[in-house]
Amino acid sequence: MTVSEIPESKCDVLIIGAGPAGLMTATWMARCGINARIVDKRNTKIFSGQADGLQMRSLEIFDSFGFCDRAWKEANHMIEMCMWNPGPDGVIRRSDRVSDVPVGLSRFTQIVLHQGRIERFFLDHIKKYSKDLIKVERAVLPDSLEIDEKLAGDHSPTSYPIKVTLRHLTEEEATPAQSNGSSVSDGLFRSNLADDDTDDLIRKSQGKEGTMEIVRAKYMVGCDGAHSWTRRQLGFQLEGEPTDFIWGVLDVIPITDFPDIRMRCAVHSAESGSLMVIPRENKLVRLYIQLTEVKPDTSGRADRSRINPEMIIKAAQKILSPYKLTYEHCDWWTAYQIGQRVGTNFDYRSRVFLAGDAVHTHSPKAGQGMNVSMQDAFNLGWKLGLVVKGIARPSILKTYQSERRRIAQDLIDFDHKFSRLFSGKPAKDLLDETGVSMAEFKEAFVKGNMFASGLSVDYGASMLVAKAGDAAEQGDGTDVSSKNEVISKQDLATNIKIGMRLPSFKVLNQADARPWHFQERLKSDGRFRLILFAGNVLSPTQKKRLDAFCSTLDASRFLKPHLYKDIDILTCHSAKRTDTELLRDFPDILHPFDVRTGWDYDSVYVDDVSYHEGYSDAYRGYGVDKETGCVVIARPDQYVGFIGELSGEGMREVEGYFRGIFVG
Amino acid sequence: MTVSEIPESKCDVLIIGAGPAGLMTATWMARCGINARIVDKRNTKIFSGQADGLQMRSLEIFDSFGFCDRAWKEANHMIEMCMWNPGPDGVIRRSDRVSDVPVGLSRFTQIVLHQGRIERFFLDHIKKYSKDLIKVERAVLPDSLEIDEKLAGDHSPTSYPIKVTLRHLTEEEATPAQSNGSSVSDGLFRSNLADDDTDDLIRKSQGKEGTMEIVRAKYMVGCDGAHSWTRRQLGFQLEGEPTDFIWGVLDVIPITDFPDIRMRCAVHSAESGSLMVIPRENKLVRLYIQLTEVKPDTSGRADRSRINPEMIIKAAQKILSPYKLTYEHCDWWTAYQIGQRVGTNFDYRSRVFLAGDAVHTHSPKAGQGMNVSMQDAFNLGWKLGLVVKGIARPSILKTYQSERRRIAQDLIDFDHKFSRLFSGKPAKDLLDETGVSMAEFKEAFVKGNMFASGLSVDYGASMLVAKAGDAAEQGDGTDVSSKNEVISKQDLATNIKIGMRLPSFKVLNQADARPWHFQERLKSDGRFRLILFAGNVLSPTQKKRLDAFCSTLDASRFLKPHLYKDIDILTCHSAKRTDTELLRDFPDILHPFDVRTGWDYDSVYVDDVSYHEGYSDAYRGYGVDKETGCVVIARPDQYVGFIGELSGEGMREVEGYFRGIFVG
Repeated sequence: MTVSEIPESKCDVLIIGAGPAGLMTATWMARCGINARIVDKRNTKIFSGQADGLQMRSLEIFDSFGFCDRAWKEANHMIEMCMWNPGPDGVIRRSDRVSDVPVGLSRFTQIVLHQGRIERFFLDHIKKYSKDLIKVERAVLPDSLEIDEKLAGDHSPTSYPIKVTLRHLTEEEATPAQSNGSSVSDGLFRSNLADDDTDDLIRKSQGKEGTMEIVRAKYMVGCDGAHSWTRRQLGFQLEGEPTDFIWGVLDVIPITDFPDIRMRCAVHSAESGSLMVIPRENKLVRLYIQLTEVKPDTSGRADRSRINPEMIIKAAQKILSPYKLTYEHCDWWTAYQIGQRVGTNFDYRSRVFLAGDAVHTHSPKAGQGMNVSMQDAFNLGWKLGLVVKGIARPSILKTYQSERRRIAQDLIDFDHKFSRLFSGKPAKDLLDETGVSMAEFKEAFVKGNMFASGLSVDYGASMLVAKAGDAAEQGDGTDVSSKNEVISKQDLATNIKIGMRLPSFKVLNQADARPWHFQERLKSDGRFRLILFAGNVLSPTQKKRLDAFCSTLDASRFLKPHLYKDIDILTCHSAKRTDTELLRDFPDILHPFDVRTGWDYDSVYVDDVSYHEGYSDAYRGYGVDKETGCVVIARPDQYVGFIGELSGEGMREVEGYFRGIFVG
Repeated sequence: MTVSEIPESKCDVLIIGAGPAGLMTATWMARCGINARIVDKRNTKIFSGQADGLQMRSLEIFDSFGFCDRAWKEANHMIEMCMWNPGPDGVIRRSDRVSDVPVGLSRFTQIVLHQGRIERFFLDHIKKYSKDLIKVERAVLPDSLEIDEKLAGDHSPTSYPIKVTLRHLTEEEATPAQSNGSSVSDGLFRSNLADDDTDDLIRKSQGKEGTMEIVRAKYMVGCDGAHSWTRRQLGFQLEGEPTDFIWGVLDVIPITDFPDIRMRCAVHSAESGSLMVIPRENKLVRLYIQLTEVKPDTSGRADRSRINPEMIIKAAQKILSPYKLTYEHCDWWTAYQIGQRVGTNFDYRSRVFLAGDAVHTHSPKAGQGMNVSMQDAFNLGWKLGLVVKGIARPSILKTYQSERRRIAQDLIDFDHKFSRLFSGKPAKDLLDETGVSMAEFKEAFVKGNMFASGLSVDYGASMLVAKAGDAAEQGDGTDVSSKNEVISKQDLATNIKIGMRLPSFKVLNQADARPWHFQERLKSDGRFRLILFAGNVLSPTQKKRLDAFCSTLDASRFLKPHLYKDIDILTCHSAKRTDTELLRDFPDILHPFDVRTGWDYDSVYVDDVSYHEGYSDAYRGYGVDKETGCVVIARPDQYVGFIGELSGEGMREVEGYFRGIFVG
């Protein structure tokens, strides 16, 4: 086949890899109505094993798309973490119980569900919102990447600087080899103990007919894992070192007299290594088991042919002794070598982006990998969507690296500390300086819990986050500073932290008295939210301030065309619900009229007592003054971009914020 | 075609009609693994209109099957009821606000969702649990019914006393005629203003070839509506009288300045009749509108050709004046004549049963019809399932009529009172004796709310409900008394009322500390639940009582074969969770061991403080002593059948209860 015969097509965004990061990217593309394609070298989705932990923040994100309920219903909920350590006699005993996640941070807790189910929720959602236009194309492999450097800086709608050749594999070519003779499906082929097979797949399929195509794209996102082909094409590195610690993983239905088998447990044995228990759905339990008898060879990597479920369970039995542990059913198993690495670059000229394992790898025990990967893509997707649609300036794309590379570094630091504390031998007593102090381990766990919830993410100053300080310093060094000099007033909403996700409290719909978690109204539909904490609207002074804000908004020639389409307006007031009336007390712009559907009844909320769900005291929770209120801008990903006064002056700052983001 | 050529087949249960009652029956058949068929004369399911209100009890039932979450997510939630009445100047004003449902009764509230969606949840559930064996066969009409009177009393597995001839209609024959020229779909053809078309359909399809079949069945359930063909074959009557009140129904997206359009409202105008507002999903609002200008003719029935959406909205506009009301989108409309009728008989020789509108009709405004119909079938289905499977004695089938006919009578009484208060003119002042007092209306509403929640149902004494008193008197007169003379001790659990559904409080799973509403563990899988309120298991005296109960249970030759299969055992204790251990403190029979899956971790619960969801104080809520506990039997439909002591003696009463129900 000559080059001219290769079929050629265009798309706005090409996504390489259909794991959690790739699917999250595709989900945003579906929600924003972008012409996108997503390809994956595997011919099938995952049926067992792989990642399973879902952070509170990931569940909030799922909820913003509308499918959190499916995960919540099917998953195992982890509530308590138990620590087991050797007593003076060397026998393990329960030394502590703590809440698995910090209390009061989110309306969700940490849950555990098989990655295959999570991917199913994404796939159903993408199908629904893209009207079946975006489908994962499996057994499709990228073969070459060219970037037209001249076009890369040209963000006009007709500029397609990326050229990728794709190969379509046969079913046989795309099926990964399982390891030696085991009847149970294993994940070694995806583990860091195995070589990547991408080059093999390319080589095997070369020279075959009718299996290639060329795609020209505006943007490309490499979500293709730790061995990322996309990253290699760009010449970017993953930096970091492996350790000597090798761990096995078993998904089994355990038969045991260990009392805490349905709790999350960290077990340090005196001499046989450590073990973590992660109870899962359908009676399964995942066991992370330190393999003290396997060591890396001179190449720095352990011989994976020596690892199998039988030797892993034996290691577990030693650690858990004197308790008994066996199984009849093993669902999946794998092994990995602990190490932490982070990508040098997350984007190339704001045209090609890397997300997920392609830019950070670490040990899986803390349940972070899938979450941080999805959250990378959750950060990137709406920015790409708004830029492709010509709504936002391309410069906002730089904030992807500035915001997420710092998180990746935090993740790696967290995992480095946590995995060493976990793989180390417990100290025999206070004088044992080489051992790990169990008090230190507990403290690290409790502190790490805040990070591991996904809720501590705090993005630095940029054109998207109007906060004081040096943008480069607060991020990863990339220059993402704003030209518009809008600075938020943090003290107007002391618990709504600029740069962090908007917390949630229950409020009531003014029109029908139904309680909602306010965060439920911040859907991931690609729109910014202008949130008016309207305060006491029954006070004439405050009503004047509200009216001044609304009439300045109504008069803004810059913002008017974006209202409702790109900027959703939500109001939450603090007067008594039954003393206020939607149509009488709130300017029309806050509940717009439509000739076909009448007034909007879903935009005005009140911080008041509910009949069945108590009183959330949202203003106090948010740290907002009940008389004077304030105005908050939440980005399409629920992170807080701006806080200002509810006044004509505040409204001009709101306009300034959006002038730094929107094209015109 | 000669008779011998007509194809003939057998099934255990034949269901006529695939509305809510028929689908609920089929759902139980699917869950119990019964060979059942369900046919409906219509060729399509409902796409708009019809019933929409879901009581709290219906939601609890949906949850017991596992699909409440779907309804909860899609529905509109009704929170507040507003009453509007004429002031001294004759102009309507809001006179009261009350909670739409009583507070604290259930974890659900009343919601509103289109009947078609509810039927979809049933259909999906039936498909899943019957493994696609039970499917609604549409455009299929019963043509003749014969019952072999000799076989009717023979409950051996080979006895099929029912012979039904079914006709398969063509698509055209099965499509109901819409009313005169309107482009909006209407429900007049199902309304009580229209004649039934069953006989028409039969006549039209007669003489055609290849459209008949004979089904021989053990049992048959007629869920075929107010005009029930099944009821007519049995010669049973609906007794009661129509009134002169005619009401119209509009499902519209309203364009209005009426402030409470998203609340449930009862509006009494001074001179123009009454109106009820039911806010629905997708911006829709259902309006029930009294048509004071339409009167029944000499036949006692109103001329339906005069009724159309235009005249209904005009009536609404008059009632709501001075507020404006129009619409651009009308989803559905219908009209009906208020009347209350109840069936003389609910079963024929425990072989043919009638459920839903076939045995009770009334006005739709209180949102009861679909709920009571589903609850009829929810009461019947598991009994049929257990009898067909040879587990339970056929005599339990008599309790269907004894329990549900009384409820139907209560429903009719409620509706009679409520609809007269609602259709009457408001009193002008205290001296106006012909008018309806608004204070009386409010009082009736608040009292009626308890009935309308579906939670006040209290079944009388029978072999299924071990309570004191005369069984015939407590039911509808049918003799359903028990021969086994087991009487519950109500004072051991003062808030678990014998004959009523088990209330729900949050408890924690002993093995993993996860909070559950205890009712969530009472799934509708056809099993009875033996619930051990084990009390303070750390007290040696109490431990002895618990052990005595469990060893007597273990030694029962009658009950042993039924354990776990037909009787699920749940334990809820009151000692501190962290001081107790599942494997150490609880007899094995409470958390049985399986060679393939190990110990059961989902059967023992504790009344203790949770990390994230507070403390429910379940023992106090249930009115059970925290030291000594008690034992409760919940029927497969969550209604309480027995309460006794947790002791060897109590265990013998438990055996007595089941001896009255199970075959052997």
